[in-house]
Amino acid sequence: MDARSPKTQPRQVRPARGMRDFLARDLEVRRWVMEVIRSTYEAFGFEPLETPALEDLEILLDKYGEEGEKLLFRVLKRGDKLAQALEEVAEGRGQAARSLADLGLRYDLTVPLARVVASHWSELVFPYKRYQIQPVWRADRPARGRFREFYQCDADVVGAGPPVAEAELLAAAAEALRKLGFEDFEIRVNHRGLLLGLLRASGVDEALHMEAVVALDKLDKIGWAGVEKELVARGIEGPGQVARVFDVQDLEPGDWLGRIDVLAGRVDETGREAAQELAALFRLCEAEGIGAQVRLDPTLARGLSYYTGPIFEITSPGLAVSLAGGGRYDDLVGSLAGRPLPACGISLGLERIVELLQGRKGARQSHPDVLVCCWDEALAVESLRLARQLRSEGFSVDLYPGAGKLGKQLKYAVRRGMSVALILGPDEVAEGRVGVKELATGQQTWVSREEVARSVAAILSGTGREE
Amino acid sequence: MDARSPKTQPRQVRPARGMRDFLARDLEVRRWVMEVIRSTYEAFGFEPLETPALEDLEILLDKYGEEGEKLLFRVLKRGDKLAQALEEVAEGRGQAARSLADLGLRYDLTVPLARVVASHWSELVFPYKRYQIQPVWRADRPARGRFREFYQCDADVVGAGPPVAEAELLAAAAEALRKLGFEDFEIRVNHRGLLLGLLRASGVDEALHMEAVVALDKLDKIGWAGVEKELVARGIEGPGQVARVFDVQDLEPGDWLGRIDVLAGRVDETGREAAQELAALFRLCEAEGIGAQVRLDPTLARGLSYYTGPIFEITSPGLAVSLAGGGRYDDLVGSLAGRPLPACGISLGLERIVELLQGRKGARQSHPDVLVCCWDEALAVESLRLARQLRSEGFSVDLYPGAGKLGKQLKYAVRRGMSVALILGPDEVAEGRVGVKELATGQQTWVSREEVARSVAAILSGTGREE
Repeated sequence: MDARSPKTQPRQVRPARGMRDFLARDLEVRRWVMEVIRSTYEAFGFEPLETPALEDLEILLDKYGEEGEKLLFRVLKRGDKLAQALEEVAEGRGQAARSLADLGLRYDLTVPLARVVASHWSELVFPYKRYQIQPVWRADRPARGRFREFYQCDADVVGAGPPVAEAELLAAAAEALRKLGFEDFEIRVNHRGLLLGLLRASGVDEALHMEAVVALDKLDKIGWAGVEKELVARGIEGPGQVARVFDVQDLEPGDWLGRIDVLAGRVDETGREAAQELAALFRLCEAEGIGAQVRLDPTLARGLSYYTGPIFEITSPGLAVSLAGGGRYDDLVGSLAGRPLPACGISLGLERIVELLQGRKGARQSHPDVLVCCWDEALAVESLRLARQLRSEGFSVDLYPGAGKLGKQLKYAVRRGMSVALILGPDEVAEGRVGVKELATGQQTWVSREEVARSVAAILSGTGREE
Repeated sequence: MDARSPKTQPRQVRPARGMRDFLARDLEVRRWVMEVIRSTYEAFGFEPLETPALEDLEILLDKYGEEGEKLLFRVLKRGDKLAQALEEVAEGRGQAARSLADLGLRYDLTVPLARVVASHWSELVFPYKRYQIQPVWRADRPARGRFREFYQCDADVVGAGPPVAEAELLAAAAEALRKLGFEDFEIRVNHRGLLLGLLRASGVDEALHMEAVVALDKLDKIGWAGVEKELVARGIEGPGQVARVFDVQDLEPGDWLGRIDVLAGRVDETGREAAQELAALFRLCEAEGIGAQVRLDPTLARGLSYYTGPIFEITSPGLAVSLAGGGRYDDLVGSLAGRPLPACGISLGLERIVELLQGRKGARQSHPDVLVCCWDEALAVESLRLARQLRSEGFSVDLYPGAGKLGKQLKYAVRRGMSVALILGPDEVAEGRVGVKELATGQQTWVSREEVARSVAAILSGTGREE
């Protein structure tokens, strides 16, 4: 009947490669972060969406580029369909990875959003503002901070053009980060149309646009002289012209509209339209109260493909990591929905945020308040009644599931982070009292049943219990 | 710049077979149910656990029986390993489903729990009381109420024997169901050891135990005469003896301890020990305050395999469905952890509960409180400021992301379930006022910026907003 406490270490069994278990203490910060993001997105009028982990493979194929597609987890066909596919592959009629699998695990939250817009077209209210906080899976090589299962926290607006949607996304993300305790983050903003216009004006060959962007991205660290060397190293002629077109560092700090104006004077008509959209977005950010955080970064690229309008990234200069990123992608949703549909979105980097906040206060408590000890089986009934009484008064109460030695039960309570243990032995039951043990000090007092709740509350408030 | 409202239906794209998207209105009840279950499990001292969707295939194999294993979703190997596996299969050296896959999707929450106990042995505090609310995947034939991705809500105690752990599990499940508004449920309890003892005493051949259980399960509907016919039809000799051994209907209603006593007198020593455990559990259930709900059901089997001690099922007689089920399984965790470890658990049927509660009040609201309309791009700044002001006062505020016709914006607010729309046109801005439109009545008033929050709150409280 006793709880058996295992003593020897069993054989090693681990989670699958690149995957993590989240025990109670891991979930304290994690759930708090998700809850802050969730409630902030909702306060900005976004509604929740959840989609299945598995999508038909054809939905996922040809969306993520060659390298991305290699990282898809594909699900093996079953039964007759598997047998048939194996025959095809054996006869050389099918490509293995395509023929043998019929489903794939969600790789991001954007393609499922596009699929949902197509699937639920008539039920959705447009503009469709949704947020989604769910895991995605990528068969990437695991590394520090890189996992094969990780959460994304996306908010998107489908069916609306710029710039109000972008301003709201940025304000929502900034508000969530502020609530999570981040203070010194920067919101770097650019426009893909302006970036392309500047590259054209620089005379950089289109085939070398990506190379130029990689070099420009190092400006903060190596200055213009360094960037020019990088450009040359990457086969770009006339690096001085690139610097002359992109450089607007000599304006007043924070005069982003002035910088946009200067850049607009250097680009073609398409680039100028982009600059106008960007200027409108900066004006709205001021009204959103994030004027001090936004800054123009004409070299920000975010991978070039996929995005069609304003793009943004939230970084923390002290940490040299990106906390969020996003932009406008007017073609992607339409490609699944079957007609053009403007869209833009932002994604908060949950795993990175959780990592930065580890050990932070303000996280949710995931252990019970109180342990009710169990003297023996005969007295278990009394302990159950006491536990039930305290639960009805709103306490989170653990009842020791067994009847081991009292010392073992108290050690269990301490290891689980509880502050109070209640003891109901034969004497206590006979006298109608309860032993109240404060675990931090080991001090024990005896109170009547009626006084237990007050006594427990006093200890909990004294030991920093917050709610 | 305008929000474009799509008008034509695009081509059909659906979620994968047997899978569901959850839009905002689906999530209202769903999230509320999960939150009630979560908080109840925590109030009973269970701590949260989350495990990855994918487990190494070898962890999942040989756990669910032949039929269960057919329902596993297996993940195709990638790269060189896939090529190698294909060669093996082509040469007849490997079985396709085993060789080609290296990972599998979570099929239940019990095997992952056993794996976690093995993986985190030294970090866990035993008895380990955990709950887990996560999806599982089964390649079952989809049917009404049967999906290929569905949630399980499990609570388990690992490292403790009966009966306190069982009593706490039943009390926690009952409390969650009560909080969800279920009232007339029954907690049917049996003990696998007693069931086997009774079958032995009935003289039923061991090979026919399952057949006998299926027949006995119909007792409520067809009475003893019907059951005897069923037994004969299933090849069981001496059906009268089965009835004599199992029948305890002539005792006082609710006298479960009396019934257990009678049954204990009919079984062998092993059966009698089981009866004693069962009696102890019934006594504890009384103390837990669920004495009126528990009832002895000596014919309850729950599949026979897997369980080793008390077993239970919560049913709603009016609905003829099971809301929860579970029991003691002392061997399963040990088989992975590498040494014997007693365990028991309960699983609340989320999908069924959500289905029964559809349209129920008390669910969480997932739409914003207020729409701030957007007159045109020039005035968008004013609308953003107003939205920001109301958000800072705790309202959930949607800002229309664009500048379409006012009528369209109001229709959008109504379709999303909002009660109030705020209008800031050129006149309002000039006069420092805001137009407040109550969408249910169409009535519009004008108030100053300072009065907006109060005015909105009044409308929301008048239209049944709860928080």
